[in-house]
Formats: sequence, C-alpha cells, structure tokens
Amino acid sequence: MYRVTNSIKIQNIVEFSFTFTFKKYNFSVNIQIPTLLLDENKCRQNIHFMTDKASRNKINFRPHFKTHQSAEIGSWFKDSGVSGITVSSVQMATYFAKAGWDDILIAFPVNILEISNINKLAQNINLHLLLESVESTKFLIANLKFKTGVYLKIDTGYHRTGLLPENDKDILKILSLVKNSSKLKLTGVLTHAGHAYDAQKKEEILSIHYNSINQLLKVKKMASEYFPNCILSIGDTPTSSLADDFEGVDEIRPGNFVFYDIMQYYLGICNYDQIAVALACPVVAKQRSRNEIVIYGGAVHLSKESIYNAKEHKIYGLIVKLQNGNWDKPLPGTYISSLSQEHGIIKTTEEIFEQIKIGETIGVLPVHSCLTANLMINYTTKLNRKISKFRFNS
Amino acid sequence: MYRVTNSIKIQNIVEFSFTFTFKKYNFSVNIQIPTLLLDENKCRQNIHFMTDKASRNKINFRPHFKTHQSAEIGSWFKDSGVSGITVSSVQMATYFAKAGWDDILIAFPVNILEISNINKLAQNINLHLLLESVESTKFLIANLKFKTGVYLKIDTGYHRTGLLPENDKDILKILSLVKNSSKLKLTGVLTHAGHAYDAQKKEEILSIHYNSINQLLKVKKMASEYFPNCILSIGDTPTSSLADDFEGVDEIRPGNFVFYDIMQYYLGICNYDQIAVALACPVVAKQRSRNEIVIYGGAVHLSKESIYNAKEHKIYGLIVKLQNGNWDKPLPGTYISSLSQEHGIIKTTEEIFEQIKIGETIGVLPVHSCLTANLMINYTTKLNRKISKFRFNS
Repeated sequence: MYRVTNSIKIQNIVEFSFTFTFKKYNFSVNIQIPTLLLDENKCRQNIHFMTDKASRNKINFRPHFKTHQSAEIGSWFKDSGVSGITVSSVQMATYFAKAGWDDILIAFPVNILEISNINKLAQNINLHLLLESVESTKFLIANLKFKTGVYLKIDTGYHRTGLLPENDKDILKILSLVKNSSKLKLTGVLTHAGHAYDAQKKEEILSIHYNSINQLLKVKKMASEYFPNCILSIGDTPTSSLADDFEGVDEIRPGNFVFYDIMQYYLGICNYDQIAVALACPVVAKQRSRNEIVIYGGAVHLSKESIYNAKEHKIYGLIVKLQNGNWDKPLPGTYISSLSQEHGIIKTTEEIFEQIKIGETIGVLPVHSCLTANLMINYTTKLNRKISKFRFNS
Repeated sequence: MYRVTNSIKIQNIVEFSFTFTFKKYNFSVNIQIPTLLLDENKCRQNIHFMTDKASRNKINFRPHFKTHQSAEIGSWFKDSGVSGITVSSVQMATYFAKAGWDDILIAFPVNILEISNINKLAQNINLHLLLESVESTKFLIANLKFKTGVYLKIDTGYHRTGLLPENDKDILKILSLVKNSSKLKLTGVLTHAGHAYDAQKKEEILSIHYNSINQLLKVKKMASEYFPNCILSIGDTPTSSLADDFEGVDEIRPGNFVFYDIMQYYLGICNYDQIAVALACPVVAKQRSRNEIVIYGGAVHLSKESIYNAKEHKIYGLIVKLQNGNWDKPLPGTYISSLSQEHGIIKTTEEIFEQIKIGETIGVLPVHSCLTANLMINYTTKLNRKISKFRFNS
C-alpha cells in the first residue's frame, strides 16, 4: 500500500483522500490511474431485469456481449439461464467460444476475409451469421465447410446496414440460395433499430419498436414459406428496456443495458442508479478563475463520444463522488466539457470546485459505456478484484 | 496464405482482391481485420523535416511520443540525433525509460497519486515534470526522493491547464519553493498552444505562435532571476510545422507531425502525402440506394474524433485505395459519414461505389492519428513487419 509523509498541508489532503479510500469506508481499491469501476450488484440487477422481462414475455434472450466483452460478466448471464449470445466480430466470437459459449450470433455483415476463422467457429459451435447481400451469401455457400445458421438482416429505418423490407427481389433470391444450400440454415429475420437512439421521447422509441416488428413480420412471412421455424429477432437497449409488449417477437438482443450510461439516461431509458460503471480518475489540477477541474482521464480512457445536456452543453461524462466503491447522483452543474488524449476538463460550480482537491479520485459516468469499456483493459470491483476482458487483436 | 475456390462470380472478385494484394503489386500484408498500416518512409521524412528545422534554428527538439507510443519508432528519432523526449503519462515514461531513453518530460499536470512510480523514474533517468500549482509543488518537495527537473506550465491562450502568465503571485511562489528545494530544479518555462487547432487560417496559427513566445518570454525573464539557465519550450504540430522564425525559443515539442492526419491537412499544416498511417479496413457490405459502403472499421479502431469538411459534412476519415502498401490521394466525394462500435459507413459517388467490392480492403486516413494509433495494438509496415507499441495499463 502506498504511504505519504504527512508533513505539509497538501499532504493532509492526500492523507484524507487515502483515509477516505482505505479506512473510513473500507474501500480497498488503490487507485493511481484511470480505473474502470464496476458495481457488480447494479450489473447483476440489470441482467436480472432483462432476463426476467424476456422470460415473462416468453421470448428468447440472446444478449449482445459487445458492451462488456468479458467472459466473467458473460458467466453472470449464464447464471440467469442465458444460453445463446450476440457479438460484433469474429474475434469476439472466438473469445467467447473459448469461454464455453456454443451458440453465438455474429451480428455484423459477414467479413468474408475472415472465412478461415469463421470455419473454425462453425466447426465447433452453433454459429449464426448475418446475410444482407446476394454476393456474401454466394461466397458463404461456396466457402463454408460446416453447417451454419444465418439471419436475414433487415433495415427497418436505421439505414446503416441490411436489406430494405420492400426489397423482395434480393430477399427472395437470398432465401432461395439458402434453401438450396446444404451449408446454410435460416435461423430467423432480424433488425437493429439503432434509430431509436435519435428519438426525442419515449413514445417515439415505442413507435420505432412496433414499427420495426411490423416490418419484420412481413419478411418473416416470406421467409416462413421456405423455413417454417424462422424466428423474429429484434435488439437494442432503448426499445427492449421500455417496451412491455413483444407480440410477434421471438428473440431480443440488447447489450448496453448491462451497464447503461448517460446516453441511455438522457433518452429516459434508465435511472442514474442503474449505471453500473464509473471511470475513477485522479484530480491533477484546478483552475479557479474558470471553476474547472482537470482530471487524469481523457479520450484514450473514455472515448470521444459526446452528447448535449439540457442546457445544450456538449458533454463527455457526468461526475460522481466515489464513496466506499459506490457513487450517488451526478454532481449538479458539473460535467466534462472537453477531452484531450489524457486530460479531462470538468466544468463545475464554485461550491463544488472548493470541495474537490488535487490528489482526490472522482468518478465519471461515461456517455457511451460500450466505448469506455472497450478502451479499458479490465474492470475493478468494490473488493479490488480485477475482471479481465477481450481486447481486439491481442 | 488464405485460398479461395474460384467457383462463382463473387469469388472472382475475391480472387481479384487477393491477386491485387499478393501478386500484382507484391504487397505481402494479409489483411483480414482492421490493420494500421505505417508508411515508414513518410514517417522518417516527417521526422527528418522536424529534426532538420530544429537543427537549422539551433533549438532543442524534444518530440512528443504520445502520438506513436512505440519504442521502435522512437529509435528512428534517436537515429536523427534526438536525446530527450516528451510523453503524457507516468506509465508512458516508464515504457520509454525501459526502451533506453534517459531524458523524459512528462507533459501532464503531476498526478501525485503516482508518486511511487515517479520516484522510480527520477532515480533512474533525467526526469522532468510540469508545475502549475503551489499545492503540487509542495507535495513534490515533500515526497520526491531524487533530484528532478521541472518546467513551469504557462497557459498562453489554450485555457486547458497551466498558470496564466499574469499570475505573478503563484509563479513567484512556485519559483521560490523550487529555489529553496534540494529536490527540484527548474528546467524551463513551457506552453502548449493547443488553441492553434481552432485557427481558421495559417496567419492565425503563426500569430498564436508569436503571441505564445512573447508571453513565455515575460515569464522566462522572471524565472531567470532564480534560474539563469532556464529555457523556453513550446510545442504543438501546427505552429512547429508552419513557423520559420523561432527567435526566443530554446526547445520545441511537437508530436502529431510524426504521422500527421486529416485534421492537420484541413488546417493547412501538411499535404496528403505526408500522412504516414492508414487504417486498412475490409469492405463488408454495400447499399446501392444510398451510395454507401460499409467497412469493418469503427469507433473502436478509429476513435470517434470527427471534423467538418468544406461542405460542412461531419467526417470520421477519408478513403484511399491501397496499392502495394501505398496509398494515393483520398477518393473524391468519399468519406466516413458515421461510425458505430465496429461499423464505418462511407458515403461516396456512384462511380466509386461501383468500383469498390465486398471483400476488398480499403484505407482510411484518420481524422486524429494519435487516437487511432492509441486504439491499435501495433503498426504493420509494407513488408508485413509488426511494430509494437505501448498500451495503457497492460
């Protein structure tokens, strides 16, 4: 454990910070650098919330693991009865297959350059891929060596990827190719209603939910002619969190809800006390003339994802005080106003400015927890346990 | 080497792609996933350009290594006669100290929670820290175990960190504390004119350059009363690249110039052919109705740094064709218009849309090369050699 000599005033502050950290609240995390704290209870409650909702609605729950990217956090889903998962890359699928998952959907347009690793996965697990073009379908039919499940990816309004539901020609062409292939088997029709993130009101999010289902039902009807067991799969945290009616839906695939974040809070999807991660950051400087506090915690820890708050300020995170590994509501009038590579600049009130000292550690609730989690090498729990995770290309 | 069966039309395209990659141009990099290509010649030319400029102006060159974060690329600077460097964290300083650098400035407000590792560095190398508060100065005096150099950090207009030049009270207080300390020794006065990035014209960047120097000269005069050998240090890529007059300057510390990027290009600081890195990305889908191309290459590879182009489109990167490990000018009317976690969406013209095929690999010139490099685990040269780099907390 780190010790300082208590000889001058600034040291008292540091001692206080450590007393605060180690003794009074028995919070044993020795934080020296930006550290991603995970509140395991909140995280497990989030998992329970969604598992329970899927169970009550009698729909399959295939959570997206791109948010946490961790075998251990994945195991908490297994504890809740989850058996199939969603990931966003071949590498991530390989990581979770090694962790024991044997039913994995790669919810990303097939990267045909990775066919060798796709075949390795298809040999060992129940793999599902997305189809959205005749070209990639033909490639898979010619190059897959093992039976593989496929979902038709439909664009219900997000306009990022997928076949438009009215594109009967390509949909039928792909269905026909799949039907005549000995390698491919249609698992279902699927969408990601990412445009729900642009909604201004809850009603708008619910409207996107029902609208997406209706568009998918039309495609499912076409697909069912060829594949009677074809399912309908939707998935995003806003609609899955808010909706109570899943009529027509067979499967949901939300991911972000495992941690939630400020973006979801601003959308009205979660409360502050459901946000399960906070980046602990050392305070390194203060600028009294501007009521600004400088933290060690920048774009390489949080990502440059931003959002506008109610006062139209662009923000990169909200600030919480850390106590006993817990955090309460964000501090009022206080937010990260800019990020450099390693610096975070916090704008705050005069009162809060006086309370926060150099050498303290404060928490940042991220705007987009998926990107913050991706940047950090591991999670730290209240008991200072490190939870490891996948890292791209390492 | 990866092989495909040439049985159907789409396969011809893939075969072409590989022929293109492996044979015709003898480019031996087997790219399957987002891969950060480094053009070693361009990078070495960029290093030479800045080393030569410093040498001609008889000023010390202490390059910032936070952009490349690589021991090997660092060694190319050593080849050019550089002996002292700048980094942005204690961990990064430790990485480069292990690589043999023994004169390192950590250009970040002192994180007093890392005093133990700061002492380890101070014991072994000629370490320099930034001072910008009386509190941190007192802490260092009480807790440093070895002689350490310090720079006074002055805010000449960026308003991120540093003492305002008119803050004589704190400047004199810190100078007096340093003077009376047996541990601290003033190396110089320093600024980072980050506001040069907000400039609209070259003249404005040069005006920031001269203005910063003038403000620092005033502080240097005060500091020289205590420390006659005190130097004046400035550093950022825009001013260091453009300026030819360094009267009054003793040291420059630019970093980004080692790779440059689209942000620097839009500022008028570099040409396209000076940009030394490109992210190679597989093409995974196409959307004909929108002239959009989807690549495997998203926020977790490029970062969410964006910039507005001349037509006021928010862009996340420009697109180049890869040939023989080289790339030419960006494709006209073509840019990344949005990024998800793993997806990049490219808007392009009808003509270019037809040329680019699923299964091809295209290059992305990043908006901010520091953040893209930070996200990637290594660099790949034209000869498929991997150049490793520092990673935070690993």
